[in-house]
Amino acid sequence: MNAQTKPDTLVVGYDVPALPGMDEADIQTPCLVLDLNALERNIKKMGDYAKAHGMRHRVHGKMHKSVDVARLQETLGGAIGVCCQKVSEAEVFARGGIKDVLVSNQVRDPLKMDRLAQLPKLGARTIVCVDDLENVADLSQAAQKHGTTLECFVEIDCGAGRCGVTTTDAVVTIARAIDAADNLKFTGIQAYQGAMQHIDSYEGRKEKLDIAIAMVRDAVEGLKAAGLEPELVSGGGTGSYYFESNSGVYNELQCGSYAFMDADYGRILDKDGNRIDQGEWENAFFLFTQVMSHAKADKAICDAGLKAQSVDSGLPFIYGRDDVEYIKCSDEHGVIADPDGKLKVGDKLRLVPGHCDPTANVHDWYVGVRNGKVETLWPVSARGKAY
Amino acid sequence: MNAQTKPDTLVVGYDVPALPGMDEADIQTPCLVLDLNALERNIKKMGDYAKAHGMRHRVHGKMHKSVDVARLQETLGGAIGVCCQKVSEAEVFARGGIKDVLVSNQVRDPLKMDRLAQLPKLGARTIVCVDDLENVADLSQAAQKHGTTLECFVEIDCGAGRCGVTTTDAVVTIARAIDAADNLKFTGIQAYQGAMQHIDSYEGRKEKLDIAIAMVRDAVEGLKAAGLEPELVSGGGTGSYYFESNSGVYNELQCGSYAFMDADYGRILDKDGNRIDQGEWENAFFLFTQVMSHAKADKAICDAGLKAQSVDSGLPFIYGRDDVEYIKCSDEHGVIADPDGKLKVGDKLRLVPGHCDPTANVHDWYVGVRNGKVETLWPVSARGKAY
Repeated sequence: MNAQTKPDTLVVGYDVPALPGMDEADIQTPCLVLDLNALERNIKKMGDYAKAHGMRHRVHGKMHKSVDVARLQETLGGAIGVCCQKVSEAEVFARGGIKDVLVSNQVRDPLKMDRLAQLPKLGARTIVCVDDLENVADLSQAAQKHGTTLECFVEIDCGAGRCGVTTTDAVVTIARAIDAADNLKFTGIQAYQGAMQHIDSYEGRKEKLDIAIAMVRDAVEGLKAAGLEPELVSGGGTGSYYFESNSGVYNELQCGSYAFMDADYGRILDKDGNRIDQGEWENAFFLFTQVMSHAKADKAICDAGLKAQSVDSGLPFIYGRDDVEYIKCSDEHGVIADPDGKLKVGDKLRLVPGHCDPTANVHDWYVGVRNGKVETLWPVSARGKAY
Repeated sequence: MNAQTKPDTLVVGYDVPALPGMDEADIQTPCLVLDLNALERNIKKMGDYAKAHGMRHRVHGKMHKSVDVARLQETLGGAIGVCCQKVSEAEVFARGGIKDVLVSNQVRDPLKMDRLAQLPKLGARTIVCVDDLENVADLSQAAQKHGTTLECFVEIDCGAGRCGVTTTDAVVTIARAIDAADNLKFTGIQAYQGAMQHIDSYEGRKEKLDIAIAMVRDAVEGLKAAGLEPELVSGGGTGSYYFESNSGVYNELQCGSYAFMDADYGRILDKDGNRIDQGEWENAFFLFTQVMSHAKADKAICDAGLKAQSVDSGLPFIYGRDDVEYIKCSDEHGVIADPDGKLKVGDKLRLVPGHCDPTANVHDWYVGVRNGKVETLWPVSARGKAY
């Protein structure tokens, strides 16, 4: 909020969509609501799983962009720190007290490298991904300038088709360069297969992960042969963490969406053919909306459109209702099919957004509710930190 | 930015993506850039058109959410004020000094009505849309409580299929109720046909608008017969303003996207079959991005994904380049097909986003550039003001 428009006092609906102590029914819409009981259960469950499998869990902070959620993942879920995708996000987490921060992405811009190299001064172990020899020299120079150490993962493209190298030779070559560079440390491998996480069937996902694991295993062998055994082999998401955990080669997970769930992830199937939002994880992340026009008998218009959510992965579903359906999304409106006229103006609904990450990124606040009452407000601390 | 993470000094790339005086090449990506020359030409052109046709121009502030852009539209384009879609946006514009504010939407929540009724105290003429008799009593009560006057438009659904009534009888009935209610004033008609703005062909758009104009004309006749001649008949967008301006029945326009342009609007055709971004309007709104990985020969990976833009209306195009193409968008990455290996790491590109409104809504800043230099930074003042 800029100074020009800052009000004198905190006003519900202007600065914030709710205040602690308020009834859930009085929350101003549209806004993001976290069901704290469900969130805590999800976080504890994944934490217990990681611990039981001897895996470090570096939670993906780019999903929620919240220092408060990351801290809860540390205290309740045993997370060892976070990963995120941008230097500006890493700055928010490091300043927020997170002590182990991986930028699971390439950092190439000179100013961004300069900022990255200052993060260790905030007390955070700082790791970054590399997929190009040229970057090694630049990162080394930035770290030398600030007298810090940047740790590096070599990124393998194990199927996502974005950043990363695709051969063990390339991995070893880059790792050697990192190992030889001043103020850099070769720490391990980044191998996240982002393209398979949303394949519906368990077997379909397993097939893709088997390929990824074979690539990573080969790279680890190559590195060992070169005397550069990786300390960390990191990857895994909500649709794959059991594969990495049982691979014998990964030792660090990077799950994000499990904590919140969303409509697109929810529909993928577990080993037994059940949707993962029907047992494995709970919906803890909701977009509250309200009916604000019902001028046509069979259509209700609600107040959550494209400015309150991202529809890149499909429309939201309406939680707990099969009699009404969110069928169209424009800038500030959602059209809800209401064939039996069940809704009326003022009715509030919980939407489960198609994609949690970019939906969280349009909001300033999470409203944490428990048993019908607003318990807390958490800022979306790294909202808009894209640069 | 919350206090917890506030740095001591303004740092480019942390708080802001650029500083005035900086070369365009040094702007931190991804971020929104406004070409000020193009923006000013677009604003002046629409302003001149409206003036020449005797139309009031109430610019749509929900598109840019910026007090600074709205003020430029007033001073350079002769705009009489703004419309916007949410009470929280209206608060930002009224506090920012805009003196005539229409919430071109229904306001039904009790707390929102209470806030709306306080806007006139900030010196803003305040107008709101109504499509339901029940709302009239509630708005009247809110305005009485604060001793203010709320002006009301009856909204006609003239084809968009969202809010609004569909018969002249309903228009007259609601207008009568408004006219009779304490602290409310019946001021006119809201009739924006949002569903036709993106039909490619001019004739296709005209066909839809002819239907809308006939509905509005009938409603105006009905109102006159009831002794309730509307002072304002408001509507029109970037794909239709010439139809409303020549209708003889509308007297106020509500255009928004013309000032910025985007990929989806740009491809609609004018009367002569030319794209409207090839003469009628200029692209003034860009998402700057940078290549941050090129590990595969035929693909460049850039740093602008779903957190930097909305893809609801399609992917962005790369301005001024036909040798490379933005083909895939994930959370923080864009995949650019680069078949001839024209790009290298560090190269900066101007994307024209698919849809300007929800893309502006994920950013905190507009970087205004002129002749290769950063001239100004404008906050996206009403960013995230969805409730």
